[in-house]
Amino acid sequence: MFRSPIKHCRNCGSAVTYRVPDDGDTRERAVCPACDTIHYENPLNVVGTVPYWGDKVLLCKRNIEPRWGKWTLPAGFMELGETTEQGAARETDEEAGAKIEMEGLLTVMSVPRVGQVHLYYRARLQSDVFDPGHETIEARLFSQEEIPWEEIAFRTVRETLELYFADRAAGRFSVHNVVIV
Amino acid sequence: MFRSPIKHCRNCGSAVTYRVPDDGDTRERAVCPACDTIHYENPLNVVGTVPYWGDKVLLCKRNIEPRWGKWTLPAGFMELGETTEQGAARETDEEAGAKIEMEGLLTVMSVPRVGQVHLYYRARLQSDVFDPGHETIEARLFSQEEIPWEEIAFRTVRETLELYFADRAAGRFSVHNVVIV
Repeated sequence: MFRSPIKHCRNCGSAVTYRVPDDGDTRERAVCPACDTIHYENPLNVVGTVPYWGDKVLLCKRNIEPRWGKWTLPAGFMELGETTEQGAARETDEEAGAKIEMEGLLTVMSVPRVGQVHLYYRARLQSDVFDPGHETIEARLFSQEEIPWEEIAFRTVRETLELYFADRAAGRFSVHNVVIV
Repeated sequence: MFRSPIKHCRNCGSAVTYRVPDDGDTRERAVCPACDTIHYENPLNVVGTVPYWGDKVLLCKRNIEPRWGKWTLPAGFMELGETTEQGAARETDEEAGAKIEMEGLLTVMSVPRVGQVHLYYRARLQSDVFDPGHETIEARLFSQEEIPWEEIAFRTVRETLELYFADRAAGRFSVHNVVIV
């Protein structure tokens, strides 16, 4: 549907067929007719931060597709062997070169249309000097009034920013469980 | 490390080699020398519920490995096309045949050793009659005092139960971000 189908078995290289396995499963999977390997495909996690410096938040102007030139929060795919927080901190370092102290979880957002879950943490910046990586054209601080709402790359980022500012105005942060339809 | 390595390309079936791709990546990936497909492997989400009926919670006795015969909360791998909550509700139906009304997110637990993130929701049972599936020997309600703590299948389940009872005693539920080392 939203990913290229599996054509060959990762174990033996034979052409796979899509069918419901015989083990009580109810979904079609790519099954290898030669070695019986069942290939599961599951949602991916995107982990990131809302880095803040006083009353400003850090946004990154994307130097990659999709949404080249649009503004985003530092975030990317979670890797094996790391925690959600470690992944969020790594992406913040890679994309913005920002030194942060991780704070609480802010949003857990399911995006079923693309098979993803996005998790954002609040992060206190320890400096307002940044060293963005190759995926970022520019890393810059914005006050709430300065946020380029029409130039935000993704709806997950817009919702996370809106929830951050709403919680900040309310004087209390909490964790928001959100579905992006 | 904790998953069987990719041997063949999912796109063309050629034998892959593990190396750092030339696109600015910093990690070794399975790369196809024939069609250049890069194969990413990322953490999996496990989604489940803490189903409660009055002061009791529902546990399922596992009819599958690992931890056959041990007690667990209903949970399983999140599927493509669903939200975390939909996945948690589906697993609760599949494993316990329990009718529930979903409530708030309770735990977000990284388990980096196995490349997983576990998310548990509180869920109000709408009946105390259950219809467990083939993965479950028995589905049964336990008060806090009756919980078989030494027979709980996974540390994620034990931590989630402990946090549930602690929040309940405090009279206020919140979302807990946990790392299982």
